Amino acid sequence: MTIQSNAIYLKQPPQGMPTTNNFEVRQEQLDDPGKNQVLIENIYMSVDPYMRGRMRFMNPGDRLFGGAIGRITASRNKAFAEGTLVLNQNSWREHFLSDGSDLQVIDADLAPLSSFLGIMGMPGLTAWGGLLKTGEYKEGETLFVSAASGAVGSVVGQIARIKGGIAIGSAGSDQKVNQLINEYGFSHAFNYKTQDPLTELRKAAPEGIDVYFENVGGLQMEAALTHMRVFGRIPICGMIAHYNDDGIATPGPRNLTETIYKFITLRGFVVSAFEEYRAQFQAEMGEWIRSGKIKYQETILDGIDKAPEAFIGLFNGANQGKMLVKLSQE
Amino acid sequence: MTIQSNAIYLKQPPQGMPTTNNFEVRQEQLDDPGKNQVLIENIYMSVDPYMRGRMRFMNPGDRLFGGAIGRITASRNKAFAEGTLVLNQNSWREHFLSDGSDLQVIDADLAPLSSFLGIMGMPGLTAWGGLLKTGEYKEGETLFVSAASGAVGSVVGQIARIKGGIAIGSAGSDQKVNQLINEYGFSHAFNYKTQDPLTELRKAAPEGIDVYFENVGGLQMEAALTHMRVFGRIPICGMIAHYNDDGIATPGPRNLTETIYKFITLRGFVVSAFEEYRAQFQAEMGEWIRSGKIKYQETILDGIDKAPEAFIGLFNGANQGKMLVKLSQE
Repeated sequence: MTIQSNAIYLKQPPQGMPTTNNFEVRQEQLDDPGKNQVLIENIYMSVDPYMRGRMRFMNPGDRLFGGAIGRITASRNKAFAEGTLVLNQNSWREHFLSDGSDLQVIDADLAPLSSFLGIMGMPGLTAWGGLLKTGEYKEGETLFVSAASGAVGSVVGQIARIKGGIAIGSAGSDQKVNQLINEYGFSHAFNYKTQDPLTELRKAAPEGIDVYFENVGGLQMEAALTHMRVFGRIPICGMIAHYNDDGIATPGPRNLTETIYKFITLRGFVVSAFEEYRAQFQAEMGEWIRSGKIKYQETILDGIDKAPEAFIGLFNGANQGKMLVKLSQE
Repeated sequence: MTIQSNAIYLKQPPQGMPTTNNFEVRQEQLDDPGKNQVLIENIYMSVDPYMRGRMRFMNPGDRLFGGAIGRITASRNKAFAEGTLVLNQNSWREHFLSDGSDLQVIDADLAPLSSFLGIMGMPGLTAWGGLLKTGEYKEGETLFVSAASGAVGSVVGQIARIKGGIAIGSAGSDQKVNQLINEYGFSHAFNYKTQDPLTELRKAAPEGIDVYFENVGGLQMEAALTHMRVFGRIPICGMIAHYNDDGIATPGPRNLTETIYKFITLRGFVVSAFEEYRAQFQAEMGEWIRSGKIKYQETILDGIDKAPEAFIGLFNGANQGKMLVKLSQE
């Protein structure tokens, strides 16, 4: 029995900001699982800013992929019972066949299913590792994080608060700023579109900042460098402001000389650097979630045809917290 | 008996590129040493790019200072015999009085006297520490250093060669480029004013560079980031291209996003970070000098009235190797 399944392909790699015209839906027909294969129905898929970078190296018609959570609906593989929930890297499609080698079983009793694509998954580990490992954040230090209401930034700030520090966050709307203070417990927050970052940093932390968790690029890094304390650290997680700079590249900070006398370290990283800490991370994060010390939000669009819109929304502030697309019922 | 001594003061802090009008010579009268004091006659003084940064925070009429080597010509302090050679921080003047607390005795048998302001002193330790400690340079790695014919850069490249690595250097004239290859033994060198840095890096090191020792700022860092290998390091020693940017700051590299996927570290430092290694450094460097493994050059102008010219010359390529001013006979 063949199955009809919708999948989204890259019609044309984006030039600058992506649009829905860069994507196309295709209907695929999947056969029953062969020997040792399983059929997976995806339930949630993730859209993430890093995918924009990957598209630079892709060609028209290429298959899109990334993190998703699905359920095994038919199995000819003894290791996977029907009904098992699995993390996979076959997003942007409703169903797929697998020999199981690319599947990770999820224990959905630990946390809500969708959180394994967010705070318990890649963005959570990015925040935890980027702050504590790459950023070498120590108890009581002063943190500044940009894109602070996003899936990574909101967790970064909350971890600093749990560790007794000052957390300053920036976001692109007054509503998000309020959310940072009232929901996520940031010490100070500001709207980078209407307020001057350096003025805000000086107000919130007169003695300077120890760690700037960089998600954005552009002028906020200049303010952070200027107001950074000696031996400050800048883990560079992302620079979303630059991801759509295909033609003209935006200049970097004009004050990198600040690094010299202040012994500042900038260090780029991606989440794969923290794979060895995943168990420790999940134990800590699970406890923080269960005890209510950490909160998280999700923005979930419904149906695979909304996936391009969800992805594009990452670059214009459409999401609050982790952006997901729901492909079928849990 | 009073002594007539010339000293140079900051008449007006520079705006942009310094000129001789920013400085003024004053004749000072010094008394005989008081109790526990010594009188020092300076023999060599150093001019260094870092002094430009310090001038941002100085006022008209302020006293200039920095590294110098002098001889004790009169002593009422039992710890210092007449004739003792001392390193001091009272440059930009011919004579001065001291209680001895700011003097470091020099053993001139170890190396030529002037080298204690250069390869055996601050610039040498800057090169050694910046490359091996901040840059974590490892045997056999590929190094790129800008301002490679300068007092720091020429040593950085030679250390990489001693450690079995590839050393690529850039400089601002064909004569300096020839010197890098023929005198200092660099593997490859190019003129950044007439050749494209990225093209040259690709040619000299097809597999990429591991460490970029940053002395300059501007476009060379962009090329280094683009051509850097995974886990590359950029010790930021100086950004001489930006030191005279008082009004309009020059934009930073447009491709800092390279740091993310390549886990690149940028780290600023000043030489004080390596004070704890000074003995180890002097032992290694002394041996390299005596065995002929390391060569160095000095540009020495004569007379204190040439000090402003020597300092300004740092910013227009007038020096080969360490720039010094000779104030009296050895």
